[in-house]
Amino acid sequence: MKTIKVNISNAFGAISEGTVSGMLPEASEALSKVENGTGAGNDFLGWVKLPLETTPDLVDDIMATARRLRSECEYVVCVGIGGSYLGAKAVIEALSDSFAAYREDGSTKVVFAGQNIGEDYMHELLQLLDGKKFGIVVISKSGTTTEPAIAFRLLKEKLEKQAGKKKAAELTVAITDAKRGALRQLATEEGYKTFVIADNVGGRFSVLTPVGLLPIAVAGFDIRALLHGAAEMEEATKAATLENQSLLYAATRNALYRAGKKTEILANFNPKLHYFGEWWKQLYGESEGKDGKGIFPAAVDLTTDLHSMGQWIQEGERTIFETVISVETSEHELRVPSDADNLNYIAGKRIDEVNKMAELGTRIAHVDGGVPNIQITIPALHEQWLGQLIYFFEKACGISGYLLGVNPFNQPGVEAYKRNMFALLEKPGYENETAAIRAKM
Amino acid sequence: MKTIKVNISNAFGAISEGTVSGMLPEASEALSKVENGTGAGNDFLGWVKLPLETTPDLVDDIMATARRLRSECEYVVCVGIGGSYLGAKAVIEALSDSFAAYREDGSTKVVFAGQNIGEDYMHELLQLLDGKKFGIVVISKSGTTTEPAIAFRLLKEKLEKQAGKKKAAELTVAITDAKRGALRQLATEEGYKTFVIADNVGGRFSVLTPVGLLPIAVAGFDIRALLHGAAEMEEATKAATLENQSLLYAATRNALYRAGKKTEILANFNPKLHYFGEWWKQLYGESEGKDGKGIFPAAVDLTTDLHSMGQWIQEGERTIFETVISVETSEHELRVPSDADNLNYIAGKRIDEVNKMAELGTRIAHVDGGVPNIQITIPALHEQWLGQLIYFFEKACGISGYLLGVNPFNQPGVEAYKRNMFALLEKPGYENETAAIRAKM
Repeated sequence: MKTIKVNISNAFGAISEGTVSGMLPEASEALSKVENGTGAGNDFLGWVKLPLETTPDLVDDIMATARRLRSECEYVVCVGIGGSYLGAKAVIEALSDSFAAYREDGSTKVVFAGQNIGEDYMHELLQLLDGKKFGIVVISKSGTTTEPAIAFRLLKEKLEKQAGKKKAAELTVAITDAKRGALRQLATEEGYKTFVIADNVGGRFSVLTPVGLLPIAVAGFDIRALLHGAAEMEEATKAATLENQSLLYAATRNALYRAGKKTEILANFNPKLHYFGEWWKQLYGESEGKDGKGIFPAAVDLTTDLHSMGQWIQEGERTIFETVISVETSEHELRVPSDADNLNYIAGKRIDEVNKMAELGTRIAHVDGGVPNIQITIPALHEQWLGQLIYFFEKACGISGYLLGVNPFNQPGVEAYKRNMFALLEKPGYENETAAIRAKM
Repeated sequence: MKTIKVNISNAFGAISEGTVSGMLPEASEALSKVENGTGAGNDFLGWVKLPLETTPDLVDDIMATARRLRSECEYVVCVGIGGSYLGAKAVIEALSDSFAAYREDGSTKVVFAGQNIGEDYMHELLQLLDGKKFGIVVISKSGTTTEPAIAFRLLKEKLEKQAGKKKAAELTVAITDAKRGALRQLATEEGYKTFVIADNVGGRFSVLTPVGLLPIAVAGFDIRALLHGAAEMEEATKAATLENQSLLYAATRNALYRAGKKTEILANFNPKLHYFGEWWKQLYGESEGKDGKGIFPAAVDLTTDLHSMGQWIQEGERTIFETVISVETSEHELRVPSDADNLNYIAGKRIDEVNKMAELGTRIAHVDGGVPNIQITIPALHEQWLGQLIYFFEKACGISGYLLGVNPFNQPGVEAYKRNMFALLEKPGYENETAAIRAKM
């Protein structure tokens, strides 16, 4: 079985191989909390056994729904924010043609809404959809999260106007709580097709549930292979050894953090992984950034950002480490043209070979510059390996959060801005907060 | 005159108003180095007087060239990396329809290449351009930077094949050194229309030269207004007082850095400013990240990232501060539909009003959480204010770099990966480096 591999041989300096192996007992205990549900936040561990437990019936249902939307829609708008947005976006971008948006080939295009409160964004989206056949996948546990709730109301109105109320209901799919909440209630009233967000899977761990799987399937990708890869990694990350790649990554990054490396920069050398970096930032930032601690997660696209953040990484404060996702093979073969005057020394080489030398050269330069390096290698940007990578990072995140000494599965800080926003907007039930915030201003 | 405004009243806690005003003498000296060219890197200060000194003839020439490309091309590919990419990309994204890529309205589309070494990216771009009328704007001081050089060779070959050698030359514009370098030589041989990259303007300060102006004009935007705004800010940032908004921002961020705030998060509440954040990261990261110091620049799009990085910002290590770009007005009016059940308390409100309350609620939440806040307000996403914002940030960057005690205008660290890459690719002239890197591996 081909799997993703973690290489920490360039992470030494601030820490040593002994530092990492010395953490095995502690990391094993953290792993055990994840596997056995004995740690903080253990009511949110549904994702751990998800890949192997996902039933063929559910996958068939998702695929049939996706086929129906694809056959009827020019556009499908996925409405969601945070974990109800980033996982699907990351996988779709990783697997799509770089210029998919520009293609006029008649295939269904997946676009996103409800991940911001942009008046112009929504106006321009509604304008794009004007006269177009479109469908909606609305994703919200409660149905009351402000951003997607606003976007959905606008899109629902538009779709009903264009397609009629009955057809609009057929073209709308809701992914929400099994029983409770505003969206579940609406879905029942309107007769929407629905999928369930389980109670024991938090948003940032939900990409392998219908939350991520339906949009990915609508975009035309193979969710069976994605789940298969994740299941392979579920099997491969159970052992309490340093061969367990998730445990190894979790232990190493915590060792680096304890040695004063405060910021982790996730780097890719393939622009299609940009949103994978965004998904990873939520996964780790939201799991670990609490109680006044946590590694600060940042992401760069290379070589692009070697010409922006590269200078800082090479010579700024020595409080960072870098984790590189290496993709072993590209999809298309393209060579440097041989008439290239000042590029003669690479004429005839594959572009990806040049890219690989840029990657290796960068790793050596950064390590020489005092930036410890972790390398994560995946064979290619295919569903199977992306499924592995997703589960690998999720498992490592659980272990890592316990090593850090926090509850990796809550996000109490996310409520702070919402509470203030509700107070400022005078939401019923927030009368005391409204008075308090007014007094303060 | 409407101008951008800096508000530091929420930055206090770790520092006080007195800390900032106490920095005036030092900041004035730093400003004087920028204005009078008496500091390190003073041969790269051409950008300081650029807005007022740009001639109408140059602007006319750029606009005529842009009109010609627009009238002849479905696509114009801008080839460049770093400063030859991010400025144009930032302004174009800020001014464009959010779904411009999807529109089939026949207007010329600007796409980018040469900002990565993606084999699949280039393959897919060439496929997109198959049979299409396209033009090329290639931007490189030397013509030998690997990323754009490879992309240009591939695009040149494609264009010559599709349009013939003579027409291809007419549809290619080179922005390069006035006299020297591979691209200048090629442009002379092929008879390309050219514009000059001045010797005294570094890449990250070049958006208001033809490097940024031509792509922006090709995308259909008003470069006169952009320059006009920049010229307004040039006038407004000369005084050695705290009324000088660039000086105020530079002093405040350095005061925060000295007080242990190591990471600056540039936040927007408008998704169109995403690439403005990327441009800003290069400007500050490359100017300041050296000699083992410098604020780490990060950027977030809000409210999107309140559901990813929000938790970390609210409750992670208290070593960050936040700088928010507030856009006062949006372009289109759109209201929350009134049939919105659980959103009745905001029914009838403009989406942007909700967004503004999210912004205010976030500021209060983050300040309460121990994150000092700087607010930069611009009236709207129009060329004039973007021109102001660009010059404001550039001027502040020069001042800030001198306050930090570095040369803000060099980027020695960017060479490190290139040197290794050349050695690994056995570039002629790098024989010693090739031997050394082989011995090391």
